[in-house]
Amino acid sequence: MSRFIPHKFLHFFKILIAYKTKVVACTVNYMAETRNADKKPEEKAESLPSKSKFSEWYNELLLVSQIMDVRYPVKGLYVWFPFGFDIRKRTYAIMRELLDKDHQETMFPLLIPENEFMKEAEHIKGFENEVYWVTHGGLTELDMKLALRPTSETAIYPMYKVWVRSHADLPLRLYQIVNTFRYETKHTRPLIRLREITSFKEAHTVHTDWDDAAKQVEEAIRIYQEFYRRLAIPTIVSRRPDWDKFPGADYTTAVDVLMPDGKTLQSGTAHHLADNFAKTFDIKYEDINGEQQYAHQTCYGVSERSIAALISVHGDDKGLVLPPEVAPTQVVIIPILFGKSDEISKACSDAADTLCENGIRVVLDDGDDRPGAKYYKWEMKGVPLRIEIGPRDLKNNAATVVRRDTGVKETAPLNNILEEVKTRFESIHENLFEKAKKSLDERIFDCASLNEVKGKIHKGIARIPWCGERECGLAMEEEVDAGILGIPQGDVGKGKGNCPICNKETGNMAIMARTY
Amino acid sequence: MSRFIPHKFLHFFKILIAYKTKVVACTVNYMAETRNADKKPEEKAESLPSKSKFSEWYNELLLVSQIMDVRYPVKGLYVWFPFGFDIRKRTYAIMRELLDKDHQETMFPLLIPENEFMKEAEHIKGFENEVYWVTHGGLTELDMKLALRPTSETAIYPMYKVWVRSHADLPLRLYQIVNTFRYETKHTRPLIRLREITSFKEAHTVHTDWDDAAKQVEEAIRIYQEFYRRLAIPTIVSRRPDWDKFPGADYTTAVDVLMPDGKTLQSGTAHHLADNFAKTFDIKYEDINGEQQYAHQTCYGVSERSIAALISVHGDDKGLVLPPEVAPTQVVIIPILFGKSDEISKACSDAADTLCENGIRVVLDDGDDRPGAKYYKWEMKGVPLRIEIGPRDLKNNAATVVRRDTGVKETAPLNNILEEVKTRFESIHENLFEKAKKSLDERIFDCASLNEVKGKIHKGIARIPWCGERECGLAMEEEVDAGILGIPQGDVGKGKGNCPICNKETGNMAIMARTY
Repeated sequence: MSRFIPHKFLHFFKILIAYKTKVVACTVNYMAETRNADKKPEEKAESLPSKSKFSEWYNELLLVSQIMDVRYPVKGLYVWFPFGFDIRKRTYAIMRELLDKDHQETMFPLLIPENEFMKEAEHIKGFENEVYWVTHGGLTELDMKLALRPTSETAIYPMYKVWVRSHADLPLRLYQIVNTFRYETKHTRPLIRLREITSFKEAHTVHTDWDDAAKQVEEAIRIYQEFYRRLAIPTIVSRRPDWDKFPGADYTTAVDVLMPDGKTLQSGTAHHLADNFAKTFDIKYEDINGEQQYAHQTCYGVSERSIAALISVHGDDKGLVLPPEVAPTQVVIIPILFGKSDEISKACSDAADTLCENGIRVVLDDGDDRPGAKYYKWEMKGVPLRIEIGPRDLKNNAATVVRRDTGVKETAPLNNILEEVKTRFESIHENLFEKAKKSLDERIFDCASLNEVKGKIHKGIARIPWCGERECGLAMEEEVDAGILGIPQGDVGKGKGNCPICNKETGNMAIMARTY
Repeated sequence: MSRFIPHKFLHFFKILIAYKTKVVACTVNYMAETRNADKKPEEKAESLPSKSKFSEWYNELLLVSQIMDVRYPVKGLYVWFPFGFDIRKRTYAIMRELLDKDHQETMFPLLIPENEFMKEAEHIKGFENEVYWVTHGGLTELDMKLALRPTSETAIYPMYKVWVRSHADLPLRLYQIVNTFRYETKHTRPLIRLREITSFKEAHTVHTDWDDAAKQVEEAIRIYQEFYRRLAIPTIVSRRPDWDKFPGADYTTAVDVLMPDGKTLQSGTAHHLADNFAKTFDIKYEDINGEQQYAHQTCYGVSERSIAALISVHGDDKGLVLPPEVAPTQVVIIPILFGKSDEISKACSDAADTLCENGIRVVLDDGDDRPGAKYYKWEMKGVPLRIEIGPRDLKNNAATVVRRDTGVKETAPLNNILEEVKTRFESIHENLFEKAKKSLDERIFDCASLNEVKGKIHKGIARIPWCGERECGLAMEEEVDAGILGIPQGDVGKGKGNCPICNKETGNMAIMARTY
């Protein structure tokens, strides 16, 4: 149990129970009516490490704000706190909304028999060191070992063989959100490098030809960019170098997020599988002329790394900063009472009712803590807006509205509180995105030489000409001790210069980064 | 691949893709605009076996109506078709709604280290023949074997030890919906007896004392009864005999559903764990006097057996019959055209728009199939209401509305179509429940002797006096070759008679049944 760290923030656990937002009916949560009321006054919790010490900040924040508990007694496996799980639910609801337009959700088994798993040579080579094997059922040794899916190609494609018959069945677009497993030998990290990926959204599509599959890869990347835009997170899209593609794919396109410490987090990938797996798993269709053809396929995935990006990109020294759409609590209302005041209490509860009835997730924190302790607590949880109502506010029939993203305090008329809140939600979302975009742009450094890359690579992404040849790319990676993400889409990938290895002139700009 | 059965209903697969209901916006699905349109005319599929041959009917229906595909190449593992998964989503949304009132959703790891798993002696004895073991990560043998959770007590309670500190932390009520695993050696069956239970909803609660935990067991059973009521399924609640309780529990209360073949399906269980696990996992709290006390616990679960019950109780010879709340498509509109008729098409699409804008999940089947083929198709899918609009209907500004549950055809004015539909939804739900309740009541047979039980047990549930003694109960089970479910709650469990073994007079009536 030595892996268990002291739980100095235990009092936060009760918060999370106290302010559970109900799903069905509109219910404002009144803190004073909850069990929280019989608690001793909050002790001031120790503050977070500064975000400039990213790794410490990240680990501590996950516990303090109750996203993940890292104290589960197996390396690389973590527990979702209910609060973290609530964020996950809202985040994946966005993903489902985007996919459900032309995909369908399904669910395949976790366990893959060894003979299916071993069919695709490239694929197995890519995963053989990472696969967990079930060898026993009860006290009996199994006739055939079963793999815990590291990803589901080899679970799904035997069924696609049965399901796909005719060109009229295509395109076929299914997805599932499931747990997958990798026996990671590297340093594990919650939400980022896991032995159980609890929230793997994987889509698997089937098409008539290579071009249609290529379009689907583009569409997948578009969906992922929209998904991250909804989380107010800017992304960079690159086709991965050939040596870094998915095992068994023709090519891989990836979505990367730049993290606060200058490393990039691969946060979504889409793979063009061509007919590689179709040939292995015998997935054929009858074309319009009655001929049997191999299908072409794609697959694409996003994991709880999306939550890691959400937390890391927006959070600050005070804790989480959440875009309103995914915040479990969107507004906290805090009465500023000097002595008992029925008027203030009533104004707070009226405002809470108005917001709640209009679908805003609101908590009225009328507990006994000092206002300062309440601010601290809700800032840590990333609540986008805090509304304070005190005697002076009430005299003006107004409230003080404080934004979590900027800290700006403004006065808002109480009789228009719903609109005031909604407008600020939009503004918060846009501000979070703009801030993150600016931070990303500022940390893409133009470099003319590999020496320059070495100087910049610890601050962010280095941009450097690359002829595109494999040998030059591998030499660049070795020299700098960092990865080539690829030649990114858009202007970032275009320029003029000479490959630092072969010195050939090129219009391609590659980006290099240290990666998670 | 010999386990793969011929896919004679393949054409149904496309239906499912064609009529996907969108989540976000109100979108009527027009069959003719979908890929379905370029299909060859439907061949008449073979009809289902009669429901009186329940086992055959069940297996065939799962495939034809596209709930589960049994052709996955591992025994006891099945694939959710998107249509089945859609029903699952709606069913579990009800469960979440009921639980979220005072529970919180969370997620714990799948893999349990051997040392934690082995801590509770009773528990391990109950599961040791059923647990799948992971022994290798990649090519490396693991230092410690990892169990795939058969249920999560031993994954969750080490964390509860850390989380629970004070009486103010209690009660603690968490749940998760996850996959669990049992190495079943008996005959496996989709949704009923699985090696991967894909949809295990398990709740785990912690309380200050035995009585509070006992109340939670009652509350859990109340929630489950409400859940099944929402699925229009009547249940019987019994405390299980001591020899049939959960391994490690003080007692187990169960919810049973009577299936069409007269066997009962255990469809939900709630276990009073007393302080048995608290002592094993050292879960203590400080009471109001500052003393350390062992906590008392409960756990309770429901699996995809709920979907098996849903399908089996309501379905008929024509296929699925779904209560409106969980039906992926609630209304299908079929234009009855003799030649082209713009008026009829417009009336259909107006009706569809009205329903859709009011949150009804509607498909307008304006494809080229004959009406009869369309009826057949949507009946198989269990769509609660079919609306037909033909020339005569239109002349009366009316529609013909056909109920899936009764087959009754009625005329309804088009200008009130939303209300007409809503009223029928309520009536369908109530009728399904009443029908099922009547069928249940008719198949509980009062028996005075074990010989009588033997005569009735193949038709349903036998009700017989039982003194409540273990020895008598075991003797009864052996004599009849069926299980004692317990002494049910309510009037069914009360009566007067003599125990068939010891002949003692008793007011307790036990129920016996063949069970899944």
